[in-house]
Amino acid sequence: MDRRSMRRRVFDLLERDVPGDRPADVLHFALIAVILVSIVVAVLGTVASLGLRDGWAFAVIEHACLAVFVAEYAVRLWVAPEHPLRRGMPAWQARLAYAVTPFAIIDLLAIMPLAGSLFAGYELHGLLVLRLLRFLKLARYSSGFNALFLAIKRERYALFSCLLILVSGVLTAATLMYLVERDVQPEQFGSIPAAMWWAITTLTTVGYGDVVPVTTLGRVIGGITMVTGLVMLALPIAIIASSFSEVIAQHNFVVTFSMVSRLAPFTDLDAKALGALLPVLHSRSFDRGHMVVRRGEKTGHLYVVLEGYVEVEHPDGVERLGPGGVFGVASGAALEHMVVRAATKAKVLVIEENELHALMAKHPVVVARLSGMVFPKAGEG
Amino acid sequence: MDRRSMRRRVFDLLERDVPGDRPADVLHFALIAVILVSIVVAVLGTVASLGLRDGWAFAVIEHACLAVFVAEYAVRLWVAPEHPLRRGMPAWQARLAYAVTPFAIIDLLAIMPLAGSLFAGYELHGLLVLRLLRFLKLARYSSGFNALFLAIKRERYALFSCLLILVSGVLTAATLMYLVERDVQPEQFGSIPAAMWWAITTLTTVGYGDVVPVTTLGRVIGGITMVTGLVMLALPIAIIASSFSEVIAQHNFVVTFSMVSRLAPFTDLDAKALGALLPVLHSRSFDRGHMVVRRGEKTGHLYVVLEGYVEVEHPDGVERLGPGGVFGVASGAALEHMVVRAATKAKVLVIEENELHALMAKHPVVVARLSGMVFPKAGEG
Amino acid sequence: MDRRSMRRRVFDLLERDVPGDRPADVLHFALIAVILVSIVVAVLGTVASLGLRDGWAFAVIEHACLAVFVAEYAVRLWVAPEHPLRRGMPAWQARLAYAVTPFAIIDLLAIMPLAGSLFAGYELHGLLVLRLLRFLKLARYSSGFNALFLAIKRERYALFSCLLILVSGVLTAATLMYLVERDVQPEQFGSIPAAMWWAITTLTTVGYGDVVPVTTLGRVIGGITMVTGLVMLALPIAIIASSFSEVIAQHNFVVTFSMVSRLAPFTDLDAKALGALLPVLHSRSFDRGHMVVRRGEKTGHLYVVLEGYVEVEHPDGVERLGPGGVFGVASGAALEHMVVRAATKAKVLVIEENELHALMAKHPVVVARLSGMVFPKAGEG
Amino acid sequence: MDRRSMRRRVFDLLERDVPGDRPADVLHFALIAVILVSIVVAVLGTVASLGLRDGWAFAVIEHACLAVFVAEYAVRLWVAPEHPLRRGMPAWQARLAYAVTPFAIIDLLAIMPLAGSLFAGYELHGLLVLRLLRFLKLARYSSGFNALFLAIKRERYALFSCLLILVSGVLTAATLMYLVERDVQPEQFGSIPAAMWWAITTLTTVGYGDVVPVTTLGRVIGGITMVTGLVMLALPIAIIASSFSEVIAQHNFVVTFSMVSRLAPFTDLDAKALGALLPVLHSRSFDRGHMVVRRGEKTGHLYVVLEGYVEVEHPDGVERLGPGGVFGVASGAALEHMVVRAATKAKVLVIEENELHALMAKHPVVVARLSGMVFPKAGEG
Repeated sequence: MDRRSMRRRVFDLLERDVPGDRPADVLHFALIAVILVSIVVAVLGTVASLGLRDGWAFAVIEHACLAVFVAEYAVRLWVAPEHPLRRGMPAWQARLAYAVTPFAIIDLLAIMPLAGSLFAGYELHGLLVLRLLRFLKLARYSSGFNALFLAIKRERYALFSCLLILVSGVLTAATLMYLVERDVQPEQFGSIPAAMWWAITTLTTVGYGDVVPVTTLGRVIGGITMVTGLVMLALPIAIIASSFSEVIAQHNFVVTFSMVSRLAPFTDLDAKALGALLPVLHSRSFDRGHMVVRRGEKTGHLYVVLEGYVEVEHPDGVERLGPGGVFGVASGAALEHMVVRAATKAKVLVIEENELHALMAKHPVVVARLSGMVFPKAGEG
Repeated sequence: MDRRSMRRRVFDLLERDVPGDRPADVLHFALIAVILVSIVVAVLGTVASLGLRDGWAFAVIEHACLAVFVAEYAVRLWVAPEHPLRRGMPAWQARLAYAVTPFAIIDLLAIMPLAGSLFAGYELHGLLVLRLLRFLKLARYSSGFNALFLAIKRERYALFSCLLILVSGVLTAATLMYLVERDVQPEQFGSIPAAMWWAITTLTTVGYGDVVPVTTLGRVIGGITMVTGLVMLALPIAIIASSFSEVIAQHNFVVTFSMVSRLAPFTDLDAKALGALLPVLHSRSFDRGHMVVRRGEKTGHLYVVLEGYVEVEHPDGVERLGPGGVFGVASGAALEHMVVRAATKAKVLVIEENELHALMAKHPVVVARLSGMVFPKAGEG
Repeated sequence: MDRRSMRRRVFDLLERDVPGDRPADVLHFALIAVILVSIVVAVLGTVASLGLRDGWAFAVIEHACLAVFVAEYAVRLWVAPEHPLRRGMPAWQARLAYAVTPFAIIDLLAIMPLAGSLFAGYELHGLLVLRLLRFLKLARYSSGFNALFLAIKRERYALFSCLLILVSGVLTAATLMYLVERDVQPEQFGSIPAAMWWAITTLTTVGYGDVVPVTTLGRVIGGITMVTGLVMLALPIAIIASSFSEVIAQHNFVVTFSMVSRLAPFTDLDAKALGALLPVLHSRSFDRGHMVVRRGEKTGHLYVVLEGYVEVEHPDGVERLGPGGVFGVASGAALEHMVVRAATKAKVLVIEENELHALMAKHPVVVARLSGMVFPKAGEG
Repeated sequence: MDRRSMRRRVFDLLERDVPGDRPADVLHFALIAVILVSIVVAVLGTVASLGLRDGWAFAVIEHACLAVFVAEYAVRLWVAPEHPLRRGMPAWQARLAYAVTPFAIIDLLAIMPLAGSLFAGYELHGLLVLRLLRFLKLARYSSGFNALFLAIKRERYALFSCLLILVSGVLTAATLMYLVERDVQPEQFGSIPAAMWWAITTLTTVGYGDVVPVTTLGRVIGGITMVTGLVMLALPIAIIASSFSEVIAQHNFVVTFSMVSRLAPFTDLDAKALGALLPVLHSRSFDRGHMVVRRGEKTGHLYVVLEGYVEVEHPDGVERLGPGGVFGVASGAALEHMVVRAATKAKVLVIEENELHALMAKHPVVVARLSGMVFPKAGEG
């Protein structure tokens, strides 16, 4: 194997986008295990009574983990030019482009404590947080984090509104309490920022009890604040709950460039067209036997099979489509007489009707190619 | 530019109803910034240890903010006669009518501390709350506040019922605890109002812990109160959550008189007809490419384009409608063979079928005019 | 007016079932006001520092309220034979039947403290709870209480399951904590019932903090308990929330015997047939112009107008139905070509398809009569 | 009655699967009562001040309950070969297979304390937890536990994601607080595990208040943690709530082997085919008169009546199906012109379209037999 194809193989191993790649699975679980061990050691290392910091085992594990992380960072940097989005670039530019992605920065920060301990001869405590940042490395592997991230992203405006409402609630409650209890408890309510500590504690219904109103008027204001807090509780629950459970229910997964660039319809697209395509690709997982398109479902969506097989039942027979297969509308006609079923566990990419329309305006070539591959052809379905 | 048209221009700047008006956007963000600075200064000014109150910078910022608010209040008063609802009135009457609106009162209260410090020579602490009221000035600009306000308004009866249930829960728990723990902890449970402090703390699950039952019977009652508290939590969450997330999902925005009075179908309506129309206009935002009316959607609603463009696809072709364009039912026939799509980011006003019916009875002229402008014509669609 | 018709009039006043009965409205708000005053006085009377109990005003208000309640109880007892369900009975039996209803018992308990203070010469403190029971008298007037009551009743099995799960969670957490912290904090965790106080406080997320684990193992168990508590929170919220918001959304109101027995189709039904009918009558309120039955809505329900007017639009014209009007299915055919709209604010009783079927089996006479009155006739619609 | 048929009868009594079996009902409520008594005694026995442990009544009840549990365990072991899934096995193997089921292990653990007190002469305290495990025995009888269990099982991946997010939130908050408050409160925040106690308390909004930040920066971090906690609250509520209320709404019950093996279509299936069938059988309860299949409902499901009767209305008349009756699709054609109604309170097993498809591939014999019995026949419906 030459150097180029080896780099390609290593990239595939690290990305784990090819389904059923055993070595990639093993590598991933090994990396997850190293991260977990590293975190447990970092947490327990702060317990003075255990005296772990003085033992040699602690130092060995610490340094071994660091070595793995440094190696991982270096390898990821090396294979960066294999990323489909950066294929046209010179190698150094591709690596620089990778180095400024959030994941790469997290990886870099997670190995910073090494530098501290090597060069300064001791470990700065501030670097400890960086060590815990390794937990964020797990986000790369966890569908749960991705679901939460997608849910929060979808509802970011609504959540920002919530925050604004919460801040105004905190400010109002704190000001009133400051005016009422300032003279009675100067220690606790002597300034508005001090009273804000009480207000946030109460509005979120945490209620430590380290600061409580003692006057009658203060308790009336406190009671109103608590009831308002129930409304504050309701707002994010309303927003996050529906969004998160929807994301979870659709078994959305994160669509990456390397997944898409491997599919027949997209292999030779340039980075720009791929960049326009990726945000409009919605992901859906289906278990074996489940319906992708139900009988009589009116839809103008376009579907591309990413993994597994689907069976398209139409009046003229049954067609089996594998990875890269395209089905859906041909030219305005809906799928009305078709049933599509997952023949195996399948992952499917969906371009919704609205976005197909918008994509048509910006990248007619992509849509034209997809339309040319679609099954069934116009006039057939 | 004569004085009249200048007043009109200033009114438009302050209302920011004309889409794409850059100077109006700048003015708005500047006013928001001044409000935020003013609040931060007011909050930090109460922290004695920072000693901000004695510095000259503090006084300068304080007075600059006040000057801006006074100027804003004066200008808003000056341009009040430009408001479409008050166009027929003499100028002094229009200004008086504006001065008693909630927003104008908040603005006035927010500049009251000025009077205190100028004439009395010192600042009354009670006026501090008024300064914090400036936060409410932000409500004018925030869609989050508006969504919460709309959600609470829609469900006000249900929320009032919740409050009644909560009050009865507090009363019952407090009375029982008063009877049980009165003699053991006379300080904490010596009267029903005192016990109510414990009850509200427990029912909202805040649980400060400053007052807790100590007898066995008291703890049994406390446990039952806590479990009841879970139900109390569920009620507002149930009500607010569905209402708030619906308001957020529809991207409702606040429809103002000046928006509506600018649209072709409504330019020459008198204040009374406008006043009847405004509450039945529902607002919807659509991103580019999104469907306003889906294929086969049975609806008797009437739609007026407020901003942006929509494309109405019907059997005879495609029509593009801009601001002021009306589409929907002509005379009882539904939109069954039409598809309406947002050609650009668009804001649309909707009169729902029910309310169209009610409006017909009260203001036949308005409905007749809308019906005359509707697309497609009866017999066409 | 003779005595019989006067008793009838008083009954109608107290029941307030006839829409638009002004004197009945006034009487109701007066009774609500007396209850509220009585509760406020009872609550404030326990605050020793206010010294209300020694003032003559306190005694006067107390006794006036009691007098009103005694009078109300007596009058309700007197008019009891007017209740449609008890019309066939002799007067004494009707009054006895009324006296054992929950509302009558609450009313009786609410006037019990009178007896205590009159005969024993002093007030027993245990009777104070009875005085607070007057708050329950409000339930008669509040739609919020009714909605909560209906929601809880609908989901009583699910809520009981929740309670069982909560109890098992409390037991498990308390036992584990008892074993772990028994020796370290014998005061707090010296027995399982003592540890249960901590467990219920934690599982409901109230968290007073008067009892907290201090050992490492105890804190691990505590952490697991808290996370479990989040699930405990979710269960009743899930159940109550959907049920309560549904009840609220349908504007359900309580259907009473006197309402139903006043309607044309039911005037001469005997108590037994009425008793079978009442539980299957669902209530719905509609604002003016709102749709009772939408175009194309497939339904086999039967509708009876209780209050206000509805307009039934069918292919042959429009029919206006008032109180007592019946519409819906005639004989198996659905309402497919009809639209029914509330012409005024209207209250409608609905018998759902399922229950109509069940009622047919048990009381064919009632269904036959309704079918005879239904609009449109079979063959028409 | 010979020994074999007696064993069969005892098995039926204990399983309580035959509807309307009075003695089985009595036995079940008796066993539930013994469990409850046993738990109450175990809980109260730990209260030293009651001195129950020294009284003879305590010992008598304790030993009587133990005797019942031992007897129950022995009898269940004896009748184990009657279980349909284990019918082919020799008796000893069937009993061993039963002994390793979760329920059998719980039963065994619940009688372990007996051994401790008999042989060691005193009771080990660690065995107390085992005694409380008897509460888990109730799970066998409670539909609430089953609903929660089903809901959690359905959403186990989503809940695991939640847990991961919670753990990362706890770790992040604890690390930051450790860095900030370590020197000020070495007792409370001296190590990350110590700070994690504060973090979990805050993120779950329990808020004991035994550990609180005191520095300004610590309180800012605390405030952010609390707000994040609201999101943490929302996640499990979102997941559990929808899943649990759905399970509750469908009145799902647990389908057991003995239920299924009694039905005509399944009587002579071998254990393996039964084992494949059971997981795809969904359960639904219907009250009398309720619709099992609505008019026009498009479905490819297959239904088997388990208990009660249903009426299938089709164009050629009405058919009444009892236990073992099969209805649904014959060969691809949907139920479009049928209405199925519960003639009595009925329990129905449903095989959903997706799973019927999957079952067909693995066990064609089972599907062929069901298709042969289905009503209406292909060509009829």
